[in-house]
Amino acid sequence: MSNNLLKGKRGIIFGALNEKSIAWKVAERAVEEGAKITLSNTPVAVRMGAVKALANKLNCEVVSADATNVADLENVFRKSIDVLGGKIDFILHAIGMSPNVRRRKTYDDLDYNMLDKTLDISAISFHKMIQSAKKLDAINKNGSIIALSYVAAQRTFYGYNDMADAKALLESIARSFGYIYGRESSVRINTISQSPTITTAGEGVKGMDKLYDFANRMSPLGNASAEECADYCIVMFSDLTRKVTMQNLFHDGGFSNVGMSLRAMATYERGLDEYRDENGKIIYG
Amino acid sequence: MSNNLLKGKRGIIFGALNEKSIAWKVAERAVEEGAKITLSNTPVAVRMGAVKALANKLNCEVVSADATNVADLENVFRKSIDVLGGKIDFILHAIGMSPNVRRRKTYDDLDYNMLDKTLDISAISFHKMIQSAKKLDAINKNGSIIALSYVAAQRTFYGYNDMADAKALLESIARSFGYIYGRESSVRINTISQSPTITTAGEGVKGMDKLYDFANRMSPLGNASAEECADYCIVMFSDLTRKVTMQNLFHDGGFSNVGMSLRAMATYERGLDEYRDENGKIIYG
Amino acid sequence: MSNNLLKGKRGIIFGALNEKSIAWKVAERAVEEGAKITLSNTPVAVRMGAVKALANKLNCEVVSADATNVADLENVFRKSIDVLGGKIDFILHAIGMSPNVRRRKTYDDLDYNMLDKTLDISAISFHKMIQSAKKLDAINKNGSIIALSYVAAQRTFYGYNDMADAKALLESIARSFGYIYGRESSVRINTISQSPTITTAGEGVKGMDKLYDFANRMSPLGNASAEECADYCIVMFSDLTRKVTMQNLFHDGGFSNVGMSLRAMATYERGLDEYRDENGKIIYG
Amino acid sequence: MSNNLLKGKRGIIFGALNEKSIAWKVAERAVEEGAKITLSNTPVAVRMGAVKALANKLNCEVVSADATNVADLENVFRKSIDVLGGKIDFILHAIGMSPNVRRRKTYDDLDYNMLDKTLDISAISFHKMIQSAKKLDAINKNGSIIALSYVAAQRTFYGYNDMADAKALLESIARSFGYIYGRESSVRINTISQSPTITTAGEGVKGMDKLYDFANRMSPLGNASAEECADYCIVMFSDLTRKVTMQNLFHDGGFSNVGMSLRAMATYERGLDEYRDENGKIIYG
Repeated sequence: MSNNLLKGKRGIIFGALNEKSIAWKVAERAVEEGAKITLSNTPVAVRMGAVKALANKLNCEVVSADATNVADLENVFRKSIDVLGGKIDFILHAIGMSPNVRRRKTYDDLDYNMLDKTLDISAISFHKMIQSAKKLDAINKNGSIIALSYVAAQRTFYGYNDMADAKALLESIARSFGYIYGRESSVRINTISQSPTITTAGEGVKGMDKLYDFANRMSPLGNASAEECADYCIVMFSDLTRKVTMQNLFHDGGFSNVGMSLRAMATYERGLDEYRDENGKIIYG
Repeated sequence: MSNNLLKGKRGIIFGALNEKSIAWKVAERAVEEGAKITLSNTPVAVRMGAVKALANKLNCEVVSADATNVADLENVFRKSIDVLGGKIDFILHAIGMSPNVRRRKTYDDLDYNMLDKTLDISAISFHKMIQSAKKLDAINKNGSIIALSYVAAQRTFYGYNDMADAKALLESIARSFGYIYGRESSVRINTISQSPTITTAGEGVKGMDKLYDFANRMSPLGNASAEECADYCIVMFSDLTRKVTMQNLFHDGGFSNVGMSLRAMATYERGLDEYRDENGKIIYG
Repeated sequence: MSNNLLKGKRGIIFGALNEKSIAWKVAERAVEEGAKITLSNTPVAVRMGAVKALANKLNCEVVSADATNVADLENVFRKSIDVLGGKIDFILHAIGMSPNVRRRKTYDDLDYNMLDKTLDISAISFHKMIQSAKKLDAINKNGSIIALSYVAAQRTFYGYNDMADAKALLESIARSFGYIYGRESSVRINTISQSPTITTAGEGVKGMDKLYDFANRMSPLGNASAEECADYCIVMFSDLTRKVTMQNLFHDGGFSNVGMSLRAMATYERGLDEYRDENGKIIYG
Repeated sequence: MSNNLLKGKRGIIFGALNEKSIAWKVAERAVEEGAKITLSNTPVAVRMGAVKALANKLNCEVVSADATNVADLENVFRKSIDVLGGKIDFILHAIGMSPNVRRRKTYDDLDYNMLDKTLDISAISFHKMIQSAKKLDAINKNGSIIALSYVAAQRTFYGYNDMADAKALLESIARSFGYIYGRESSVRINTISQSPTITTAGEGVKGMDKLYDFANRMSPLGNASAEECADYCIVMFSDLTRKVTMQNLFHDGGFSNVGMSLRAMATYERGLDEYRDENGKIIYG
């Protein structure tokens, strides 16, 4: 169902890989809401992934780009403006990857070349994207830019590793550039901090299924799905949220502001059982 | 212009006083987006204010209530369900008042009976409203409840006085009840932390016009208007934000995340001029 | 062992009940560090508790006071100044109680008279204490005032109930009054957000032992003990922290900034076991 | 005056350049409190700066190191352990530099090689330092590691540029590694977010004197000095703060939690004067 929230708007969606991707859902919903879009992903992802199928379905073009490469990004903006017939109104950055996580390097044994890659791909690419767009004057007044983040930017989750630092950097870039781009052209920049989501990107994280379950039981509304995240992105791209900028917006069923829920504790308590003495008291230590 | 975001929904708007009120704008926009609503304010406000004019314009009913009185609140819910033909989908709490501010009692000379009133009217009324609704089972699954707040809940603004404490309490109640009502009926509860707005409520605050100017120059997008706040409320009432709960959402043109802007500093610097020596250096102390 | 951190200073410790109390440990450590102190608690607590034993041990006086009663508080300050021979340098507020928690009223069935009591005892008493002191000019320049808080002020913990709201209000009062008292007399006001601690006050909270275990496994350094909290208070009373004010200081072994630890997840996972299918995958829903 | 807070402890101070440096003051105070220390800075800084004078005064050794070079850092730890006669108890990281700021590249015209340098020098060096120490098992149980940060990690200050992003990354590293190092060896890792300080490092920042003045008038206690920051570092190195970890500790006279002070507004208002009409009302726009 459409509310025509993006009627007449033009957007670029970075990071759609397959049907599970949040970016995929955002692309579908953006078109449904009346936007014209282009898709972008790495050349490898475009070759191997299902991106073209999505492009066919949505009748839109794909522009390959390495998001850490400024020339590639400039090309995406130039082509998109050309194809879509005008300047851009919204952008989704759904890009993140840690070679350290992939190679199972622990946080106290990081490879620093890989750390540079983690930061470049997952955070600095966001700056490069916005700086390229600004230099090309590619974004309309009141444009809206969103990147996807995770609560690990604020609190440590074991196994999330250097991606936590990348997300903290990403959110800082949103603030820093939000100030600059806002005062000049009323372009707003925010991050959406999404529940753990069962996507291809999320699958690499250690113990993801347990964490998913924990988050789900902690959150009074349960974890937010990729579809629901897409809805929230639409809202943030629309003209109804024009004065929201430099924010990190939690879209997580309440997880971020729960310290301990009854449901999560019920599961935790069962796990505690073997630490109890004959009177039911917990044996510490 | 309408996007039919609230089509078929029923809502109650507390706190519309006159055309400047944010609640007034929310009421207008809610109806525009397809909702049926009732209005509520204190008996005095209803008698003296322009609430009835708004009700006539929007073709809706007014239910007088002292928001600190549980029986009154229950009456609002019962009548609203009756008039609107079903359970409620959204509620706006735009209520706040400090007798200490009105009587120009400073924060180190508070009258404690007045402080109780400040907290009861501006924060506890939110709990009473939600508890009453929940006991009456007055709110539909996936319902959305919003209260208006201000960044003084996080940071001290001279002259805002005990209203700061009331807003901190209000935001805590949103979290506490958001957990309870979310896990039981997927009702979400959030606060919107709005820019200083030139409303009748805001006028009482000392040095409001200077603060308004400062906030405006600090915020890359400028202060958010009452109309823009209404748009944001609509979005938060709609089905597109179903997994956002227990949050305090800044709607302030970026103010909350700016430490110092170039524009605000330009003004500040002029004020500094008389503290400079002949070489332009600031004389401290 | 003493570092003479409070040599020559005078302090008042509110809320020592028995040997488990954090306030008790603070009193002992303050004296050890060279301070002269008075103790204060409610008349009932003084009659029934072990406060006098502590007073005898530390060779200090007890001044009974209902901390919600301004006249009583003024009396504490007058007497303390008299007994200690001069104005006060530091104050500990370790006071909190919720009749709703005691009577097992849930958060969606609060008794509002009891809520008023919760707020008055646990938060507003802090304002009354500081306002009384300021009106009497009872605190020396560079004085330090601390109240004990809990992370429930930021995030919801099931069962913590209206105490969460009281702690949010308490922390707001620390900010609001920290601004006022700081600019006038360089008195600093902070809250310390302490790990769950097995004290008499903590015992009333539902599922306290499980929560204690969870916090302990989440925190890389484990929960902070009452003794360690006392050390931290000493530091915050000393002249080495003179420019720290209006802050909420987490003293919790890292808990506040951990989203999920390996240790806590190991326990949680055992609790998950019965939700797994034959392949070890979690069955959701 | 000494409280013997670091008696018998061994520490390494990175980043002392000259008498204005916070690290310089920390070194002096650490020795005064009974610690044995080594100093480290870049070879250039050691050659050109006053580091050796400080070393002579404190009777300690200097180990040159490029803090972005792991081999250099390992050498600092090996030599320090050798010279000081045992494993290390505390570390200060007071290192930060942005080539983009130096070359007056604005945030929307960053040079990405320079950004990599900013992040490597100002943030990743902290990870390299800790990882090197941990691999060498160079730090004693209950050790304490501190890095200096700035509130720009949370809120945007015009002109602070990519250093804001570096500080956000730095604080994230403190959390991420604080979790790892805490659970294994009870080593705690925190950042201290210090007031703007007139140091050689601070001098490069655009409009630093105006910002200093603004922060000073906003903060109820005024800006914290380098000496006061040193006191706070001592406290965080001592055994009295053993359960504080993964925190960002504001040491700023209250600045971080003030939205607007009366003193700052008085100056701002004078700057507003030329925007007023004959009735004293502000002319907006």
